[in-house]
This record gives sequence, C-alpha cells and structure tokens, in this order.
Amino acid sequence: MESIRVYAPATVANVACGFDIFGFAVNRPGDEVVLTKKLTPGIVIKEITGDEGRLPKEVAKNTAGIAILKYLEFIGQPDQGFELSLHKDMPLGSGLGSSAASAVAGVFAANELMGKPLSQKELLPFAMEGERVACGSAHADNVGPSLLGGFVVIRSYDPLDIIQLPTPSDLYASIVHPQIEVNTKDARRILEREITLGKTITQMGNVAGLVAGLLTSDYDLIGRSLVDVIVEPARSILIPQFQEVKAAALQAGALGCSISGSGPSLFALSKGEETAKLVAKAMSEAFNAVGIGSEAYVSQINQQGPMIR
Amino acid sequence: MESIRVYAPATVANVACGFDIFGFAVNRPGDEVVLTKKLTPGIVIKEITGDEGRLPKEVAKNTAGIAILKYLEFIGQPDQGFELSLHKDMPLGSGLGSSAASAVAGVFAANELMGKPLSQKELLPFAMEGERVACGSAHADNVGPSLLGGFVVIRSYDPLDIIQLPTPSDLYASIVHPQIEVNTKDARRILEREITLGKTITQMGNVAGLVAGLLTSDYDLIGRSLVDVIVEPARSILIPQFQEVKAAALQAGALGCSISGSGPSLFALSKGEETAKLVAKAMSEAFNAVGIGSEAYVSQINQQGPMIR
Repeated sequence: MESIRVYAPATVANVACGFDIFGFAVNRPGDEVVLTKKLTPGIVIKEITGDEGRLPKEVAKNTAGIAILKYLEFIGQPDQGFELSLHKDMPLGSGLGSSAASAVAGVFAANELMGKPLSQKELLPFAMEGERVACGSAHADNVGPSLLGGFVVIRSYDPLDIIQLPTPSDLYASIVHPQIEVNTKDARRILEREITLGKTITQMGNVAGLVAGLLTSDYDLIGRSLVDVIVEPARSILIPQFQEVKAAALQAGALGCSISGSGPSLFALSKGEETAKLVAKAMSEAFNAVGIGSEAYVSQINQQGPMIR
Repeated sequence: MESIRVYAPATVANVACGFDIFGFAVNRPGDEVVLTKKLTPGIVIKEITGDEGRLPKEVAKNTAGIAILKYLEFIGQPDQGFELSLHKDMPLGSGLGSSAASAVAGVFAANELMGKPLSQKELLPFAMEGERVACGSAHADNVGPSLLGGFVVIRSYDPLDIIQLPTPSDLYASIVHPQIEVNTKDARRILEREITLGKTITQMGNVAGLVAGLLTSDYDLIGRSLVDVIVEPARSILIPQFQEVKAAALQAGALGCSISGSGPSLFALSKGEETAKLVAKAMSEAFNAVGIGSEAYVSQINQQGPMIR
C-alpha cells in the first residue's frame, strides 16, 4: 500500500462537568488526510483545503505533520518520506478538536502505510504532540476520542491512562458552531486557578453521575449530571447568547447542553435522533435571533475513531 | 408487629477520591436497634450497650432517637410511642459511620413497625437528620450506603440525588480501626477550602475511573483510581503510621488503601477474600509495629443495607 485516505472525527471535549478529562467523538464533521509514500526522505505538505489559507504548510508547525514526524522517529524510520494532503471538513478554532482530528488522521494513515507496527492506542502520544504544536499543551481530551472513538475518560495524564466507555445506542449529539471566534488561550486564561472545596464536590458528583449514566444507559441521570459549576460559568461569558441557546436546547428536549471544548461551539446530548435534530434547530435559531449565523451537526456518538475511505 | 430487631451496616465514606460523594456498606461491623411499640406517646431510650456510656439517652440528642422523631412527624404520627434499645457493635468515632448506622437502624425499624408507609430510599432524609445531630451537618455518604447497601454516589445534595452502583462480586474490603482518636471536626477543619484546578482535574479523573471500574468489574482500574490528592494528604497527618499501614496494604496485594471517612480507620479494597484477609493482617501488623492496637474486619461490599434479625 503506497497511498491512503483517512477520515478522523471531530470531538467534544470537557462534556460539561469533565474539564480536561472527558471527550467524545461524533461522526461528522471531521478531517481527511491523504498520505502517499515517497521515495526520498522528508514530509511534504502538498495541499491543505478548507482552512481558508490559515494553516501552516511547514511540517514542524503543522499538527498532522509533527504527529507523523514524531511517529516515524519513534518507530525508527525517520527517513521514510511522505506526501500529505489535508482536507479540513470542519471549522477551525471552533472548539470541535480540529487540530486533534488532523493529527489523528495523519498518524493513523502513517501507521497503516508502515504496516501497523503500533496499535491504535499506541498512536496517542504522537497525536498529542500535534496538539502541543496547535495549542501549546499536549491535551488528550480531543485526541483521545478522535483516535479511539466513543466516550473517553482521561483518568490520568501522568502516566497517561485513557479509558473508553460504551455509550447508550440512542444517545445523539447536537453541535452548533456560531460564526464568532474565541481564542483558546483566552478561554484558558479566564478560568479560576483555585476552586472552592464545595464546587469541587459538586463537580465530582456530576462526573460520577455522568459515567454511571453512560454505563447504565440511564438517560435521566446523564441529563442531571451534565452540569458544570467550574468552567462554564467563566467561559460562557465569551459566547454571546450562551444562556439563550442553552435554554432553547433544554426547551427542545435536550438532556443537557454546554460548551464544546473551549468554545465557541455548543453541544447538547439528547435521547433519539429526532429530538437531537429539533435541539440543533432550536440552538441555531437562538443564535440567529441576534444575527449570529451558525453551522449545525447532528450525530450519534462515533464508536470507531478514524476511518479508511 | 409490635417489636423488631434491625441491624444496620457500618460504612466507608469518601473511598479515597470521592470526598463527600462516595460511600459503601460492609457486612460487619454494624449497629443493632430493638424497637418496640408502646401505648403512650413519646420515645424512650431504654438501653444503650457497647458505647462505654458515651452516647446520650436523651432522644433529641441521640442519632437514632432524632431520626425516628423526624420520621414520625413526617408521616403524621407524632404521638406514636416507642421503646428503643441500641446495641453498638462497632467502635465510636472510628470513621466507620457509627452514628449513621444507628440512625438507619432506628428509622428502618420504625418504618417496619408502622407498616412501611415509606420506601427504603424515602427514609434517607430522616436518617440524615440523625447525622446532623451527631456531627453538625446532614451528610449522606454514610447514611446513604448504610440505608441502601452497595456502593453509593451522592451526585447532588440539593436536590438530594443518590445513585446505587452495583459492585464486582469478588470485591472485598479490609477495614482496620486503630485504637487512637480523631475528632471529626478537626478532621474537617484541616482540609483546604480552596483546591487548585490541577488537583481538581486529577481527582475528577479518579472519580470517573473508580465508577467505570466498579461498573465494568475492572479491578485494575479500581486500584489505579483509588487515589486522593485532596483530602488524604491533609488528614493522613492525624493518623500515626498512616504511610506505613498503607504501604503494607498495597504490599499485601490490596488494589488501594485510604482513610475511611474522617478516620482514624483505614480501609483497603482487594480482589478476593483471601487477599483481603492478608491485607487486613498486614495493616494491623503495621500499626502494631509502633504499639498501636487495632481491630480488623474483612467483608464483601454489603448489598442490602439494614437487615431484620
């Protein structure tokens, strides 16, 4: 095999109560990488589409490029050459794990072309290196679910300990990306560095409830647990119309609604595809009411991670 | 039915990472209440054994008495009279939920004698009132598991939302109660009121991991998640020989080990009864090495709560 086309899914990180520890993948949007072996050393980024010219073609600065580079070093094949095309099928800076999806698609494609010396899970550290380039720290809450699929818990970063949870089959995500920009670094800076013990206890209760709800298919419990007293109160200020959009989602039947990653996208979880579609529509309309355009996506929880096309 | 004998189990609250939100019940030790209807109004505490004379016989100050009183008011039978005997089969002030077990046994017995107007779960608020008398605040992390059995998550206190988790059948607790005293109020006072965001994230990861481990019978994951970076570092200072006892438990094969409630008892969880017995022995010996005597208990996770005898 000399060439491969891989699609990696977008992801919702944090998932209300699980700042830095929860994430899940959706079927779309996502990113596509076409990777082709070449006979001379070095990685060449031939083409990037869908980024409006915003992403760097320099390999060491490109999230997919750096992930492949680190991977090749690790497997002892630093001289293997590749030609890479990246097709962004999702908005940049949206809080949907755009850089993570590119890194995952890239390193997954490389591993396939090299004859799969590593397991899917073993690719995680290289995709995380791509994240470090994109947002300054090697987070795993987007890369983890994009690579592994499903709902993911990062129990620990040091050592890295990632757990995949099965999700109820009728659980659907509605994602709405408003056409506004939030800087990820601002979104992190706005967070309190010290949390009261009371809030920590509340948040832990919801973390426990969400995991239990997912594992026992208790939709009500999932809904009651989608509460964030630590991050959402701070970050929602950066998203105009946040309270109205959230209220519209709940009104339309969502189990819960919060910020996807560092925003500005919002996600909601619902029981059933029909409800999830109504929820997405209601959220878009609430943004529209103040003249903010948006893109909406409805998807089951993606269960497989990257896909060869 | 005019008289009943009820046994309610001891409990381990917090369970390492789950301060104020996790608790589980064990088969022994526990408390026994004998409750008898009488024809005249009022509750009379006839006898208390096993408390070395330390518990109040005044109904409004006794955890079982107050729980029954509040219960009778709620069901609209404030004039029903009872005679109560309380047999403490566990050490007081041990961190094993002694006051909770008494309150649970009392209110469960009263509900039986009154013809079960309330469900087992509906008895919780009255048992919590007993806790308020005993320790100044209406915690549910001992009362919840003692009343309901199993491993319990208190997702929320307001409104009260308690979830029962099934536990793996081969999961055993070793509990060692050293003959030292820790004041619960000191144990709460020593806690930091502000937690760093980093520690909160670590703790949430372990909370998520423990729930997932219990629900999927993943013993390794249970072990990796029994880590407490918030409360144990502060409270362990109040327990002489803590680090050595914990190390001895892990050395003997425990999945994890931490403080039971506010201490001084320590608990460990293990896979299998044989290991749990070795762990209890190792923990007792580690206390013994510095001349601290102790009582040890080994038990499966209790699954039923109070038991009519």
